[in-house]
Amino acid sequence: MENLIINFAPTGMIPTKKQTPYVPISPKEIIDDVSNSTKFGVSIAHLHARDDQGAPTYRKEVYEEIIYGIREKHPDLILVTTTSGRNYNEFEKRSAVLELTGDLKPDMASLTLSSLNFPKTASINSPEMILKLAEKMQNNGIKPELEVFDLGMINFAKYMIKKGLLTPPYYFNILLGNISSAQAKLNHLALLISELPDQSYYSLTGIGDTQKSMVGLGVLMADGVRIGLEDNIWLDKKKNILAKNSDLLERVVNLAKAYERNIASPLEVKSKLKL
Amino acid sequence: MENLIINFAPTGMIPTKKQTPYVPISPKEIIDDVSNSTKFGVSIAHLHARDDQGAPTYRKEVYEEIIYGIREKHPDLILVTTTSGRNYNEFEKRSAVLELTGDLKPDMASLTLSSLNFPKTASINSPEMILKLAEKMQNNGIKPELEVFDLGMINFAKYMIKKGLLTPPYYFNILLGNISSAQAKLNHLALLISELPDQSYYSLTGIGDTQKSMVGLGVLMADGVRIGLEDNIWLDKKKNILAKNSDLLERVVNLAKAYERNIASPLEVKSKLKL
Repeated sequence: MENLIINFAPTGMIPTKKQTPYVPISPKEIIDDVSNSTKFGVSIAHLHARDDQGAPTYRKEVYEEIIYGIREKHPDLILVTTTSGRNYNEFEKRSAVLELTGDLKPDMASLTLSSLNFPKTASINSPEMILKLAEKMQNNGIKPELEVFDLGMINFAKYMIKKGLLTPPYYFNILLGNISSAQAKLNHLALLISELPDQSYYSLTGIGDTQKSMVGLGVLMADGVRIGLEDNIWLDKKKNILAKNSDLLERVVNLAKAYERNIASPLEVKSKLKL
Repeated sequence: MENLIINFAPTGMIPTKKQTPYVPISPKEIIDDVSNSTKFGVSIAHLHARDDQGAPTYRKEVYEEIIYGIREKHPDLILVTTTSGRNYNEFEKRSAVLELTGDLKPDMASLTLSSLNFPKTASINSPEMILKLAEKMQNNGIKPELEVFDLGMINFAKYMIKKGLLTPPYYFNILLGNISSAQAKLNHLALLISELPDQSYYSLTGIGDTQKSMVGLGVLMADGVRIGLEDNIWLDKKKNILAKNSDLLERVVNLAKAYERNIASPLEVKSKLKL
């Protein structure tokens, strides 16, 4: 079995300091958490910027600060920036981060493959928006991280492949357990995996209290796992103990050791994904 | 095997007279097509109103005219009105038709269980919108027709059942083959069916050129089929011959005969669904 990809998602759009003091919000906090994550073997960091009030921001300047701060110490780490439209849905805002160049250009950017519902809100990604984001990524040499929540999203990826908008190898995040999406169940996952196009890699996670089991499964048998406070802020299933990002990462490393699964280095993953 | 439910969807929101002269658009045309459908054993008619220009309309008056015209001749037929938000997304507009009372009240109304993408547009059904529509249906004694395009939508139905917003027996339409949803494949369908809650009935269809195969499969082994120009305007897979609604219905009847599957009457389906 190939070495495990660890994709680290420290922040996301949802957790607040009120909910957990451990979520990194400021550029400095995000840089510190990502720097610290490298000692656990993280190869990919999935970044969401926040503004001074802690709200999600699309502003390039904030991404520049974060990317500069991480690359100063860890130049090989693969950096993924979000293009999520949950808080602002204009193409210009969602794609602003794709305009960073040179040493500040992200290696990859998230691309959610359909509209969907989260527990409280609709996340709108129209076909036109998805195609335009993919085109801009392709033009700017940024590889899409393909976010999959349900069966149909993989079908849309195949449609984009036919249109020449995605280039192999493909990298998917499979995120299970959202209320209106595929569930963290083996039969759902098995069908999703069976639909992935040839030359695909995927990292697995579960949202909320399914993170633990899905990441465990991922360490056992997926190409990678996605882990971090973005998807779950609790250390235990009973939601008594708040997790630090390092707690979640340590658990992955311990599982990998227990299962004798080696962890892939950033350079190894760069070569795998042809970055 | 129980008798087959035929759910007739003559119009939808998409087909225009330019695309096919056979799509019924005016109240009179819709009333005529639905009246004619009863001789093929249709038990449920799924209605979309259009305005004078042929565009989808939420206006109660148009629904009144259609429902009055159908019930005058076919008082037992089960009538479903759409609450789709593809063209107008305000709750007041989407739910206007749920305010019809007495002899003009629809028996059922459509309820799409998540946001999703169609080929060109996002169809936005936020969790709040879905819950409010379901509540209004429950208060007004109108049964939801649960529209399912992918795995996650069934999970959301289960969440609504837990919240007491849906009452058994449940009636699902499973619509396969949309570009960003579950595909018209046996393994997708099998998993969807396996997730349906207890006390569910479902009708099956495919969108576009998958309509033929999915309806064939439905006649063989589903509780029902959904058929009509809403999902596909062509008679043949090569898209050479435009279909009439009566052509599509006749094919269902012929298949049912060939498979020795009896067709359920409107009163039988009313009793099945506890309407």
